[in-house]
Amino acid sequence: MTVTSVMPDVYSQVQHFYAHQMQALDDRRFAEYAATFTEDCLFQHSPTAEPARSPAEIVDVLVEFHERFADDPVQRRHWFNHVALEWRPDGGIGSTAYVLVVTTRPGGKPEIAPSCVIHDVLDLVDGRLRNRSRRVSHDQLPGDG
Amino acid sequence: MTVTSVMPDVYSQVQHFYAHQMQALDDRRFAEYAATFTEDCLFQHSPTAEPARSPAEIVDVLVEFHERFADDPVQRRHWFNHVALEWRPDGGIGSTAYVLVVTTRPGGKPEIAPSCVIHDVLDLVDGRLRNRSRRVSHDQLPGDG
Amino acid sequence: MTVTSVMPDVYSQVQHFYAHQMQALDDRRFAEYAATFTEDCLFQHSPTAEPARSPAEIVDVLVEFHERFADDPVQRRHWFNHVALEWRPDGGIGSTAYVLVVTTRPGGKPEIAPSCVIHDVLDLVDGRLRNRSRRVSHDQLPGDG
Repeated sequence: MTVTSVMPDVYSQVQHFYAHQMQALDDRRFAEYAATFTEDCLFQHSPTAEPARSPAEIVDVLVEFHERFADDPVQRRHWFNHVALEWRPDGGIGSTAYVLVVTTRPGGKPEIAPSCVIHDVLDLVDGRLRNRSRRVSHDQLPGDG
Repeated sequence: MTVTSVMPDVYSQVQHFYAHQMQALDDRRFAEYAATFTEDCLFQHSPTAEPARSPAEIVDVLVEFHERFADDPVQRRHWFNHVALEWRPDGGIGSTAYVLVVTTRPGGKPEIAPSCVIHDVLDLVDGRLRNRSRRVSHDQLPGDG
Repeated sequence: MTVTSVMPDVYSQVQHFYAHQMQALDDRRFAEYAATFTEDCLFQHSPTAEPARSPAEIVDVLVEFHERFADDPVQRRHWFNHVALEWRPDGGIGSTAYVLVVTTRPGGKPEIAPSCVIHDVLDLVDGRLRNRSRRVSHDQLPGDG
C-alpha cells in the first residue's frame, strides 16, 4: 500500500473533484462533465461499449444514452466510496473507487444497481484535476475486473 | 466549477462536521444536532413542512417526528455522498450533497429510501462550522429541486 | 463534539487508509488487510464471534469465513460513511463510521445488508495508521450498540 505517498490535500481535492464531476453528470450538464476529461482522454463506461476518446465524444455518448430515456422522468445518482489513490511513474494519479447507481422515478423508491468499480487515471496540472481515463467494471459481469 | 476555490482543509472539515452532525441526529441526540445550526437558521426537511427557524424549533420538530415512531424500534441512518462546496459572496459556504436514508428494524434488512439532496449554507466562524440553512429536496417528488 | 480537535489532514488520511484497507478485504487480499492491524489488536466482526487478537488470527478468521462461500462467486463490498473521529487520552484515535455491505452475484442485482457501525481505535505511529481494535455492531440486532 502507498497510503502515505499521496498527500492529504490531494486526497481531499480528488474527493471534491468527483463531487462536482458526478453532480454535473447526474444533473445532465454533459458539457461540464466532459470538460473534466483531458482532450486525449479514454472513457469506457461499460465493457461492451466503444470507448469515447475526447470530451466531444463523451458528450455524444451521454446524449445518446439519455435519449433512450427521453420519456422516462428518471433521476440517476452515482454514489462513490473508498477512493484509493496511487501515484504512477508517469506522474498521473491512479484512482480506484466503488460506485453504486441510485435510480429514482416519481413516486417511487430508489433502485440501487449496478455495483461497479471505476478505474481512473487523473492528471493534476496547475492545480487542476482532470480524468485522463476512466474505465468502469461491473460486479455482476463475471470476469470483468 | 469552483473546485479549486475551496481549500482542501475546509473540505475535510465539512465532511467531518457532517459525520458528527448526522451521527448525533441518528443517535437521537437532538439538542446536539440542533446546536450545529445557527441561532437564526432555516431548516426545511421536507418541501411540505413549515421550516424551523432556530435550534429550539429544530428540537421540537425532531421530537414530534420521533414520537410517531415511539413504539417502533427503528434505526435510521442518513448517508451522505459527493459533498460539493462553493464559496458564496456573503462569505458562507454553499454545500450540495446526496443523501440516502437507511432504515433497519430488529431482525430485518435495511430499507434504503428516500434518495434526497441537501442544499446547505454553512458558516465558518472562528474555525467552527454551523448550518445557517438546510433545505432537503426529494428525488421521488417531481419538480422538487 | 470535538470536530475541530482532529486536524483536517489526519481526517483525509483516515479516509484514505480505510479506502485501501477495505478494498484489500473485498479483493480477498487478507494478509494485506490483516497488516493494517497492530500486533496486539482486537478484531470482533460480529457480536457472537470470538475476537481475533493478532493479524495472523485475522487472516485465519477471514479464510474460514470465505471457505463457506468457496462455490459461491459472490463479490462483497463494504461501504463506509460519516467517519467521526475523536482523540483519546491514550493517544489513539477513536473512529466511528457507518457500514453497508453490498453483495453482488453474477447476473444479479446488488443486495445491501446488513447496516452496521464500526467502532475503531486507530494508532498513528510514524505517519502510519493501523487499527488497534475494531468492533462491529449490527443495526438489526437489538441491544447491539
